[in-house]
Amino acid sequence: MRRALVLAATPGVPMVADTRRVGCVLLDDAGRTVAEGHHRGPGTPHAEAEALARAGAAARGTTAVVTLEPCHHTGRTGPCTEALVRAGVRRVVYAEADANPVAAGGRAALEAAGIEVESGLLADEAARLAEVYRVALREQRPFVTWKFAATLDGRSAAADGTSRWVSGRAARLDTHRLRALCDTMLVGTNTVAVDDPLLTVRDEDGVALDVQPLRAVMGERGLDPARRVFNDDAETVHLRTRDPHVALADLGARGRQHVLLEGGPTLAAAFLRAGLVDEIVAYVAPVLLGAGRSAVGDLGITGIDQAFRPVVADVTVLPGIDGEEPNVRLTLTPRAPSTPAPRRKD
Amino acid sequence: MRRALVLAATPGVPMVADTRRVGCVLLDDAGRTVAEGHHRGPGTPHAEAEALARAGAAARGTTAVVTLEPCHHTGRTGPCTEALVRAGVRRVVYAEADANPVAAGGRAALEAAGIEVESGLLADEAARLAEVYRVALREQRPFVTWKFAATLDGRSAAADGTSRWVSGRAARLDTHRLRALCDTMLVGTNTVAVDDPLLTVRDEDGVALDVQPLRAVMGERGLDPARRVFNDDAETVHLRTRDPHVALADLGARGRQHVLLEGGPTLAAAFLRAGLVDEIVAYVAPVLLGAGRSAVGDLGITGIDQAFRPVVADVTVLPGIDGEEPNVRLTLTPRAPSTPAPRRKD
Repeated sequence: MRRALVLAATPGVPMVADTRRVGCVLLDDAGRTVAEGHHRGPGTPHAEAEALARAGAAARGTTAVVTLEPCHHTGRTGPCTEALVRAGVRRVVYAEADANPVAAGGRAALEAAGIEVESGLLADEAARLAEVYRVALREQRPFVTWKFAATLDGRSAAADGTSRWVSGRAARLDTHRLRALCDTMLVGTNTVAVDDPLLTVRDEDGVALDVQPLRAVMGERGLDPARRVFNDDAETVHLRTRDPHVALADLGARGRQHVLLEGGPTLAAAFLRAGLVDEIVAYVAPVLLGAGRSAVGDLGITGIDQAFRPVVADVTVLPGIDGEEPNVRLTLTPRAPSTPAPRRKD
Repeated sequence: MRRALVLAATPGVPMVADTRRVGCVLLDDAGRTVAEGHHRGPGTPHAEAEALARAGAAARGTTAVVTLEPCHHTGRTGPCTEALVRAGVRRVVYAEADANPVAAGGRAALEAAGIEVESGLLADEAARLAEVYRVALREQRPFVTWKFAATLDGRSAAADGTSRWVSGRAARLDTHRLRALCDTMLVGTNTVAVDDPLLTVRDEDGVALDVQPLRAVMGERGLDPARRVFNDDAETVHLRTRDPHVALADLGARGRQHVLLEGGPTLAAAFLRAGLVDEIVAYVAPVLLGAGRSAVGDLGITGIDQAFRPVVADVTVLPGIDGEEPNVRLTLTPRAPSTPAPRRKD
């Protein structure tokens, strides 16, 4: 299902109101991938149809893992339920139920045809992904997830600038999971100059994914073309602006819908001050440095009453790998301006 | 049981190898307290004996809540099991089993006499409390718990110094739980001058406990006697030193065994650098400030390789109260110098 979600997030799908991002993986009994598919927008085959077409006769007896409940209506494409039954798929596992009344009824139709159905696997993540595209469409700009890693005392690097590694391996693997669901990674010129990140997405075995997000660097400063971000592992663009609005407009014009902001404190602060952060993913490491680079730059906040207090969507403890200590991941959503924080009584 | 733990932590018990801190509360069927007791050191009555003596005939039919499994041997005092049976106690609930082979067998003896027995309630906290006194005895100085609250970006106050409130109400209530288990709260003169804390322990209803920890202020600076810490709510001592070793020696000489360090970044850094922090309790609030006072001062760390990486003993999400967002509490133990952090491979 994780792979199906990544397929659903494949870049290049047009931002249109009635398009759901869907990914599908057909697995044989041994759990091997037989075929994959994803929906590419209105008028194109659904994810299931694409995967079935690619599998051909090999689809018989497989398990179809889909991010959304297969549709049961004849729209611009035929019902996926019928296609799955016809192809001899044995079992269907989906994440999110289809809330669209026109397309619903997929589960019942599959069960009536004798197909085993399971639902709810990674449903939270599927719902989150759907929300990303809803917000992008509403705001007419890419959705922005700001990801940062910091010590317990809020440092993202030591006094001498070294930062490998603040967070643990589990947090770094989790970052690749995040990256795989975005279509763009954005950093500032300073991060490229100082940290020289590669900014590619690798799976748990360290292998680069076949489809890589766009690497975007923003800032007016010129950059050494020998920096790793300019290698051939993925496409890279240098946005010559310091203005978050301009950068997002540029990325939007390139069809990008989900930006993972991985820049340093100054870039993060610029996006926060502009109100252009839709989601924050913070990895807190049980480490103290006492000095060094702060995770976030000046927000223009002077008093505690002006503190930026987002809503907590999730807190997850990431168990340490290889004897490392656990890290804590917090997922936060900025409070909508229309719902101010409740007044504190003491 | 929480009350029994606080009783077990009552100040004034001598630091002697064979003394276990134990607290006992007798409850009637309605859950009302009939009597309380705690062990005061070698040769004095056990917690159960003290509570039973205070309850007299009213002990009949009660539930005895004890932090440690009642003893079943005749040492300097008679077996508590017999005393509980004789008094007609109906039910016994204890936290920790007694690992001492001489005193063990309490549970079996009680059950043989027809008393209902339940164990394990808050066993972790009871074990932690026992560890505090073990370390104090071994080190021949008070055990030091450093408690701090910080934003996600490691700030304990905003740029203008305001800090009420960084953390949520749930975290502040939890701090009072911590305070109730210590016999001393320690801050620096700067915290008294700037924040003017009251430093008393209150229960969940805001009522001050009857036994208050000592309030200790350390530093060479003179203090305004009108500061709240010098009021009559609890005893206060001004330790005129900046040296953590000297301060702890002084507190040890006063019979103090468990210090809750609540000072600012400079004091915390001094204790950390001196290797005099035995436990860290960090409250992380989902708040960003972008500027302001850091939670911890300079630790003399320049590179990431020297980072202070304690062991994570516990991570707990404290649900928000009154619509507030949750806070995350991390409990950490500094790594023993003999067990260096595992080498990282990447």
